[in-house]
Amino acid sequence: MRVAIVMGSDSDLPVVKPAMDMLDKLGIAWEARVMSAHRTPKAVCEFAETAREKGFGVIIGAAGKAAHLAGVIAAHTTLPVIGIPVKSSTLDGLDALLSTVQMPAGVPVATVAIDGAQNAALLAAQMLALADENLASRLETLKKEMAQAVEEKDRILQETLKGE
Amino acid sequence: MRVAIVMGSDSDLPVVKPAMDMLDKLGIAWEARVMSAHRTPKAVCEFAETAREKGFGVIIGAAGKAAHLAGVIAAHTTLPVIGIPVKSSTLDGLDALLSTVQMPAGVPVATVAIDGAQNAALLAAQMLALADENLASRLETLKKEMAQAVEEKDRILQETLKGE
Amino acid sequence: MRVAIVMGSDSDLPVVKPAMDMLDKLGIAWEARVMSAHRTPKAVCEFAETAREKGFGVIIGAAGKAAHLAGVIAAHTTLPVIGIPVKSSTLDGLDALLSTVQMPAGVPVATVAIDGAQNAALLAAQMLALADENLASRLETLKKEMAQAVEEKDRILQETLKGE
Amino acid sequence: MRVAIVMGSDSDLPVVKPAMDMLDKLGIAWEARVMSAHRTPKAVCEFAETAREKGFGVIIGAAGKAAHLAGVIAAHTTLPVIGIPVKSSTLDGLDALLSTVQMPAGVPVATVAIDGAQNAALLAAQMLALADENLASRLETLKKEMAQAVEEKDRILQETLKGE
Amino acid sequence: MRVAIVMGSDSDLPVVKPAMDMLDKLGIAWEARVMSAHRTPKAVCEFAETAREKGFGVIIGAAGKAAHLAGVIAAHTTLPVIGIPVKSSTLDGLDALLSTVQMPAGVPVATVAIDGAQNAALLAAQMLALADENLASRLETLKKEMAQAVEEKDRILQETLKGE
Amino acid sequence: MRVAIVMGSDSDLPVVKPAMDMLDKLGIAWEARVMSAHRTPKAVCEFAETAREKGFGVIIGAAGKAAHLAGVIAAHTTLPVIGIPVKSSTLDGLDALLSTVQMPAGVPVATVAIDGAQNAALLAAQMLALADENLASRLETLKKEMAQAVEEKDRILQETLKGE
Amino acid sequence: MRVAIVMGSDSDLPVVKPAMDMLDKLGIAWEARVMSAHRTPKAVCEFAETAREKGFGVIIGAAGKAAHLAGVIAAHTTLPVIGIPVKSSTLDGLDALLSTVQMPAGVPVATVAIDGAQNAALLAAQMLALADENLASRLETLKKEMAQAVEEKDRILQETLKGE
Amino acid sequence: MRVAIVMGSDSDLPVVKPAMDMLDKLGIAWEARVMSAHRTPKAVCEFAETAREKGFGVIIGAAGKAAHLAGVIAAHTTLPVIGIPVKSSTLDGLDALLSTVQMPAGVPVATVAIDGAQNAALLAAQMLALADENLASRLETLKKEMAQAVEEKDRILQETLKGE
Repeated sequence: MRVAIVMGSDSDLPVVKPAMDMLDKLGIAWEARVMSAHRTPKAVCEFAETAREKGFGVIIGAAGKAAHLAGVIAAHTTLPVIGIPVKSSTLDGLDALLSTVQMPAGVPVATVAIDGAQNAALLAAQMLALADENLASRLETLKKEMAQAVEEKDRILQETLKGE
Repeated sequence: MRVAIVMGSDSDLPVVKPAMDMLDKLGIAWEARVMSAHRTPKAVCEFAETAREKGFGVIIGAAGKAAHLAGVIAAHTTLPVIGIPVKSSTLDGLDALLSTVQMPAGVPVATVAIDGAQNAALLAAQMLALADENLASRLETLKKEMAQAVEEKDRILQETLKGE
Repeated sequence: MRVAIVMGSDSDLPVVKPAMDMLDKLGIAWEARVMSAHRTPKAVCEFAETAREKGFGVIIGAAGKAAHLAGVIAAHTTLPVIGIPVKSSTLDGLDALLSTVQMPAGVPVATVAIDGAQNAALLAAQMLALADENLASRLETLKKEMAQAVEEKDRILQETLKGE
Repeated sequence: MRVAIVMGSDSDLPVVKPAMDMLDKLGIAWEARVMSAHRTPKAVCEFAETAREKGFGVIIGAAGKAAHLAGVIAAHTTLPVIGIPVKSSTLDGLDALLSTVQMPAGVPVATVAIDGAQNAALLAAQMLALADENLASRLETLKKEMAQAVEEKDRILQETLKGE
Repeated sequence: MRVAIVMGSDSDLPVVKPAMDMLDKLGIAWEARVMSAHRTPKAVCEFAETAREKGFGVIIGAAGKAAHLAGVIAAHTTLPVIGIPVKSSTLDGLDALLSTVQMPAGVPVATVAIDGAQNAALLAAQMLALADENLASRLETLKKEMAQAVEEKDRILQETLKGE
Repeated sequence: MRVAIVMGSDSDLPVVKPAMDMLDKLGIAWEARVMSAHRTPKAVCEFAETAREKGFGVIIGAAGKAAHLAGVIAAHTTLPVIGIPVKSSTLDGLDALLSTVQMPAGVPVATVAIDGAQNAALLAAQMLALADENLASRLETLKKEMAQAVEEKDRILQETLKGE
Repeated sequence: MRVAIVMGSDSDLPVVKPAMDMLDKLGIAWEARVMSAHRTPKAVCEFAETAREKGFGVIIGAAGKAAHLAGVIAAHTTLPVIGIPVKSSTLDGLDALLSTVQMPAGVPVATVAIDGAQNAALLAAQMLALADENLASRLETLKKEMAQAVEEKDRILQETLKGE
Repeated sequence: MRVAIVMGSDSDLPVVKPAMDMLDKLGIAWEARVMSAHRTPKAVCEFAETAREKGFGVIIGAAGKAAHLAGVIAAHTTLPVIGIPVKSSTLDGLDALLSTVQMPAGVPVATVAIDGAQNAALLAAQMLALADENLASRLETLKKEMAQAVEEKDRILQETLKGE
């Protein structure tokens, strides 16, 4: 199953890029789309309704300000939808966060941190790994590598910095 | 031209009621609908797309939390759309306010105060009055009556309360 | 009917400019004024009171910080008043947003996003289009063009970016 | 010189009452008015413009939500204006606080705490006491009495509560 | 695969209950635990580490204030973890929301609305449905029933309420 | 060494009470005082300056609104000072939190959660335990008891609640 | 009577400078001090206590973060104290605003906008003008000049910018 | 007893550096570690559990966003734990502040200001000084030097800046 990455504007591409890189790293196929809940609402609707039959397993929606994109996608599918609130020029992303996460009962959006594209990809992978043992293994490996990277930094710091 | 009042849930009715009362007072025909941007998105879409030809002039959308309703309506019509952010059990309405007002360029929502239903109706009336001199007169009269009500309260207060 | 664009300070001009451009694009006549609710309150009052008879249909007010401008204009007219909260050096526009949108019952301000000048112009156009079929058509055309611009960006993105 | 207490609505009276009580206690004459920056703007304007010649020394303005009252008063006088942000049903008074305190350069409002009516009265008294030695003495006495009241509570607490 | 529902305190049970009800309705097995990231951190750690082998597919963590629970669970597993920020006596749930959603890169938590337990269950079901066609069908049916419930309310409202 | 518990007003007593109870439980002597940074500033100053020589080891300050108490105490002593921000009638404790925690470089206040009196006592105990092995043991025991209480609740919940 | 300008740190000087310039413009004598509520609390206390007898009429306090300075000054004098919340590197001045304005009953601080030094000076002048008719005249003149400056900008804008 | 400085990422080093410098200045031995509550949770757990026996007296934890680090350390030790909320690219440090300070009853974190590393070090020193008279003396000396530095700046300002 593939992952769809939908962004509300192509200006969101730099924010969303880490999601693509992480999916590539994990060997998960993805497709990226520019679709706006407000400017091309029918494209969003049609995409969301047919996403399951087109072989998508998870849909990631990234948008800023009154970020309705992920919520509108979730209105039209029962696939899990992940929302990335994107920081814009005012309010530091708080508007996008609240617009994405505070969904009413019945239509969830799995929200990650503001500009948290890498985690959106990891979360999508965790979902897909429920039925894909190979992917589950790759996630375990990745988790260990992340830990080792921190441990290595810790080792370097301990060698170079010390009081007294 | 009539005014449509769309609420995301019938639990929003008490909040929206003052809009209905004000429209009645001004002699403006209205219709109320329960439609959810997330639970019945197609009904919202179809309603918004055909609202102009059905004789609606203004659409009022009232919703709480991640309040996408007014924005989704605005995505499907070029009629002016007024958004009422509804306070819910957490965050004191700030989530609904930001989700309603922070719309991206191209798709405006005319946002009023949190739970500001009466003002939504007045704003709709002001819009319709641009082509309806009788309504414009009624709005002028109403404005004077409001002023007189305040002046009367001021008169009473001055008579009853005074230091020294 | 013309649109008035009132800004609290000439330093708000860059923020307000997109409103002027959009009105030009839609063929709507406008006039811009610098008037301050606090420094030239009588000019604001007089302007608002006579705006209808001078042929204005909608008034846009843009101000930052304790942004009283749109509210003070609305106090003196029954024309629809649109408020643009302007971001200033502190608080990221939240002060201007709350000062503009949280109007008391009786005196609405149709508030758009922080620094949302283009949407203020579109909203004004939507109001005027209630009695102007040509303008209504131009708004429909503009909406389609916006959708096509997003679709074109979507097409380009799909061609250039793909996982696996 | 008298103190004017202007409230945006007579529903603000319970919040404003402690200001009246404190002024009474300090022997300062006051007058209370209900005037709305939005519903009776001309009354506000006329009152503020003539306040100095009518013998007022300080004007206190109390309002909630988009609390423009104190700012609009300050626009029409060079008397010191004190603003009391009043908490209303949403946003816990933050909207009124920001609308009152974030005034642009040139037109100050001396803002006290949300619902801080007693302090508004004390602040007015401190201003008037600059030219009234008797009042200055009464303020000194009051300050001492407040300290003694706290000291008395401290004494009681120390007698009644102790660990070990 | 079962769903684990972990709450930081048994006082969170009323908030979490709708998740249990929804999972029951969808025929998904679940287990509830009281474990605290701060008071019983080892229990949390051990539970999270062995959750996959014990047959859990998704873990829901609900906590208030500095809500570390979901994040700490996510630190110890590659299963998808869903976080429910719980509103407590101060700050209206904002503290729990930010503590849950703002996770650093590498360790995602799928955050739902404040007190959004029903959506946490639905999101878990959507994840499990990726490999369970029957469950996917039940989710589609539920989505239709929710829409019908709104449509029925809309029908009743239209019959009972109308202006003019 | 004893612990001082200073509250800005005797109305803070119910909030502060859990600190007294916890200190009693841990066998730590304490004294409670009502002193206000604003109403009895000299008492605060004198108390803070002489606290070390009077045998106090830690000072806890609890105050609401513009909560200067803990900071003012810290200005007059090099003893560790713990601040409890107290929630008052507006802003949900955010004002007290920021007024307590955002201290400038040079004068720290160890801030605990809004209304977090029990933790203030525990933190004081942890400090005193640095030179008191018996107290350190009691803290270890208490930590284990807290864990056991959670484990017991977990056991009960697991027995009584289960899906499927 | 002179005005004292007290800043918590000499790094606040650029923020405070407009207050000095405005006082100079109005011909009001002033003295500037660097005193910290936390680092030199006794200097603050002594200064505030003797300010009246030294001929000061108003004290302006400017500080950032947990801005206790104005409040601590107000604790030691019955002169009117004006607080300028100073924006620092985090939280955009909100911490300083709340720490300055949310004073408890009995000890007011007349708070102006974040970084609002010019208004602090104007407010001080308005207070002093209560007993100084010349100063009152200068304030009236200044107010007219400010209005004229805006009117001139308005005239230029109207000449240079126009739609259609 | 030594002080441990744990940071969630080596990118936090510039923020944490002033803590190291201050500890050096006070002659307190310290060790710095990079350990993440989310990426290397076991390292954190093991470190915290053995910190007391390894001779640490205080642990400082610095982290940004959903800053769980200090809380997770506190879950595994009865040593006093100091939390430094670190400002990151969104929300200006508010997320880290709330995630650090709003700890549940039973597990305190002594929170200092956002990015307040120097104060974290001072607070640690104040704790250690409870059983170290030499250190207590050094803290007294440092406090006096800080006061003198402010007094010197005050002297310079008074000489160079004066109105009239």
